[in-house]
Amino acid sequence: MKLLHNKKGIIFGALNEDSIAWKVAERAYEEGAYIVLSNTPMALKIGNIYKLSKKTNSIIIPADATSLKDIKNLFNKTMEHFNGKIDFILHSIGMSINIRKKREYTNIDYNWLQKSWDISAVSFHKIMKIAWDKDAINEWGSIIALTFIGSKRIFHGYNDMADHKAYIESIARNFGYYWGKKCNVRVNTVSQSPTKTTAGIGIKNFDIFLHYANELSPLGNASADDCSNYIITLFSDLTKKVTMQNLYHDGGFSKTGINESIINRFF
Amino acid sequence: MKLLHNKKGIIFGALNEDSIAWKVAERAYEEGAYIVLSNTPMALKIGNIYKLSKKTNSIIIPADATSLKDIKNLFNKTMEHFNGKIDFILHSIGMSINIRKKREYTNIDYNWLQKSWDISAVSFHKIMKIAWDKDAINEWGSIIALTFIGSKRIFHGYNDMADHKAYIESIARNFGYYWGKKCNVRVNTVSQSPTKTTAGIGIKNFDIFLHYANELSPLGNASADDCSNYIITLFSDLTKKVTMQNLYHDGGFSKTGINESIINRFF
Amino acid sequence: MKLLHNKKGIIFGALNEDSIAWKVAERAYEEGAYIVLSNTPMALKIGNIYKLSKKTNSIIIPADATSLKDIKNLFNKTMEHFNGKIDFILHSIGMSINIRKKREYTNIDYNWLQKSWDISAVSFHKIMKIAWDKDAINEWGSIIALTFIGSKRIFHGYNDMADHKAYIESIARNFGYYWGKKCNVRVNTVSQSPTKTTAGIGIKNFDIFLHYANELSPLGNASADDCSNYIITLFSDLTKKVTMQNLYHDGGFSKTGINESIINRFF
Amino acid sequence: MKLLHNKKGIIFGALNEDSIAWKVAERAYEEGAYIVLSNTPMALKIGNIYKLSKKTNSIIIPADATSLKDIKNLFNKTMEHFNGKIDFILHSIGMSINIRKKREYTNIDYNWLQKSWDISAVSFHKIMKIAWDKDAINEWGSIIALTFIGSKRIFHGYNDMADHKAYIESIARNFGYYWGKKCNVRVNTVSQSPTKTTAGIGIKNFDIFLHYANELSPLGNASADDCSNYIITLFSDLTKKVTMQNLYHDGGFSKTGINESIINRFF
Repeated sequence: MKLLHNKKGIIFGALNEDSIAWKVAERAYEEGAYIVLSNTPMALKIGNIYKLSKKTNSIIIPADATSLKDIKNLFNKTMEHFNGKIDFILHSIGMSINIRKKREYTNIDYNWLQKSWDISAVSFHKIMKIAWDKDAINEWGSIIALTFIGSKRIFHGYNDMADHKAYIESIARNFGYYWGKKCNVRVNTVSQSPTKTTAGIGIKNFDIFLHYANELSPLGNASADDCSNYIITLFSDLTKKVTMQNLYHDGGFSKTGINESIINRFF
Repeated sequence: MKLLHNKKGIIFGALNEDSIAWKVAERAYEEGAYIVLSNTPMALKIGNIYKLSKKTNSIIIPADATSLKDIKNLFNKTMEHFNGKIDFILHSIGMSINIRKKREYTNIDYNWLQKSWDISAVSFHKIMKIAWDKDAINEWGSIIALTFIGSKRIFHGYNDMADHKAYIESIARNFGYYWGKKCNVRVNTVSQSPTKTTAGIGIKNFDIFLHYANELSPLGNASADDCSNYIITLFSDLTKKVTMQNLYHDGGFSKTGINESIINRFF
Repeated sequence: MKLLHNKKGIIFGALNEDSIAWKVAERAYEEGAYIVLSNTPMALKIGNIYKLSKKTNSIIIPADATSLKDIKNLFNKTMEHFNGKIDFILHSIGMSINIRKKREYTNIDYNWLQKSWDISAVSFHKIMKIAWDKDAINEWGSIIALTFIGSKRIFHGYNDMADHKAYIESIARNFGYYWGKKCNVRVNTVSQSPTKTTAGIGIKNFDIFLHYANELSPLGNASADDCSNYIITLFSDLTKKVTMQNLYHDGGFSKTGINESIINRFF
Repeated sequence: MKLLHNKKGIIFGALNEDSIAWKVAERAYEEGAYIVLSNTPMALKIGNIYKLSKKTNSIIIPADATSLKDIKNLFNKTMEHFNGKIDFILHSIGMSINIRKKREYTNIDYNWLQKSWDISAVSFHKIMKIAWDKDAINEWGSIIALTFIGSKRIFHGYNDMADHKAYIESIARNFGYYWGKKCNVRVNTVSQSPTKTTAGIGIKNFDIFLHYANELSPLGNASADDCSNYIITLFSDLTKKVTMQNLYHDGGFSKTGINESIINRFF
């Protein structure tokens, strides 16, 4: 039997073939899942998510994940579409206006900070809150958001995203506690290697993060494909008791201080 | 020589004799420091900070720590008052409207969330940003914010404060990185035992947190007095190389899973 | 295709039907793996591992995991049996003589400490060292040891096992680094809920750990069955880039400070 | 009043002027403490600790910290010398024979491993056990061992010391729990920047660790002098409620992922 046989889920944040969310949708489909894709109206224009929709035989429901109204509409339509509850959610949403506008962390604009916090972190709470209100998740469901180790250690250029990622990891723990008690739903974050997605590329020094992480990690960086495989396991029934965790999927980067290759650069 | 001999600093958040900030002001004064006290106009009315001002021979400058204008004014007047830069800052500010209004975490109001985030976490960034712009901190200065272990593990009732505390700890790391490189200023958070302050009392189940933590901690809870002593060491020149850390000041609570006393409750 | 289709592995530590290692063997077999079972000659007598051997169509090779000679013999025979390399190893070995003999942590016998350290932690190094010397693990293999959160927070009664578990987690990181660079093999520890196994039962207060953890964890304790499912994912090709991690499989226990049920006990 | 006015303590591990223990002894003396110095007979020959003894007006009592007999003798003589209990202990002892003999981690000798574990980690337990048996520590005393972040992340070349340091950090938590309950004594480890001591120099790649850490840390590496200042605060009565912690004293290294200087090396 396939790992996600007959499971239903919503995947947020697929933009194009480079997106982690895109790969997850493909893999989930291969593993027997039924999917609803969601992204902002703007992203639907820029990207080519319709291709993914065809490939995975899924419908697309536009939603600005900071809008409670949009999220409500999304869940209404999704539950109508599936004629019932869902089993998993992937949150792959994040954006810092301060990074885009090249404002240093010591000189951020606070309106942009608030918007970026809303988009990158609070949206995860809003999605879960609407799902909660609508009792939209089946027992033993699985909810995942993507994050980056920049939430724990400073990566020059990652800017306010570090703080938003710390916030979303906290939301995962906090809401995970309530979901667990309510109906055994689990909530986790996956702390992924720097990955060459459209979102990643916008970050200053991103190429160097990627390079450096790849050089330091004993197994090299985890790719978007690797990530989609890992997330499949976390959506499956084989990981029912893993919750409120921040899971490093990074080829060992988080636990490597210095290796021979970095040492050689210092000679 | 006294530990804070001739050092100058701003202490945010003293309300009354129970406040940790109050105790820190008293101890800093004893150790030879010159202090400016700041709090919101409302808090100045409710509390009796004027008593503290007299006792510590310090001036009071009202400021809403979410207002860049107020903070600018505060730093202008402080630097005028001291005729120069300062050496330390204590941020002891936090408030959740959702807690006050008894809204469960799964049902928070997002406007209140945003305001509480601004008050409890972003204010710390704003204060450092204005200090940065004005180059207001002396080399080897020390900046501290108070936090609680609820940022790492869920305490039922601590609600959205958990997420704001995760955010402020991240700000400390992030801004600490820049301050360190700029002029060797350090930034840390102190993760304090539950403490019977006016802020603490507002939290649902707070008395039980306090009780439970006290029972579980091998040394019992750290009091506000203990905390003020600890913070003095972190403001002093003896801890110059401690930065970007979240420091548990909790009698061992954070590292105790279960002790005999809790075991006995389970018999 | 089954998750462990055609994979080969060694499972250490199955004693009887309650053993986590037992469940892992059963599940691995179901998922298409070929297994060698190993345990000490003494354990082979006490337990009923022959039943498991029959059920999983596997051979048993006795080995004292502290003896390099025994481990060498085990790998020689295993590689002969499989006519080649293996893909996974489970280390489920641990024992504290001081606990058995009811010696308090403040009064441990140091010879027993050394033996328990050798059995509970160094054995993991020895197994990997022999596997390394014999180049016994296929590219992208997966090595796992079981551990408990007692390594991070004190559980009264867990005694010196806390220190040995900290050591084995460190070995996983350390050796994981070398395995990763050598041939992309990953090494992780799974930090499992208290589980009613023969090993667990020997620990003072164990029933209360189990009870307390179950009550505190939003999802309840993870069972041995749950654990075997989780470990299957970690042996599979879907988690190739997870390495050097300590993975909590505990129903959320590690991230829960206090919940309503514990609060009620304090009223 | 001086910070350690009238306090008594034992300092293990001073060898020469570069030793952290040496600096701590000097600073403790300046702050009003009375000290007993201890090291192995061999170290007493190689180093010039007699100079330190004169300078700090302290006695030297030789002891091999792996020998219960020696430690007993040391405590007997110390308590006789001071005519009573002591207030603090510094454990600055560590050595890996495998490193000395240039044995790679994947090829360590297990007898040497056991000896190095005994010297570098278990000695801390033995010292506390004898102190416990003799009830040698005053209420609110403070016990510290030095460690390195290599216990958490792999530094190529740090070898089995990583595992021993993980063990000693665990001992600090474990024994700290019991000391706290018994008589409010606290136990912590200080995770210090790479420091150019005689012990440090023996580690392969040590110079590069030092260089790299210095370049990555926003405040640069903490020196032995810095460390002695920090330890004074931890011995003082100002930090009474800090226990069972691993405290990073590293200029921010532990929380910095990548900075501009490392980025520039990758261009």
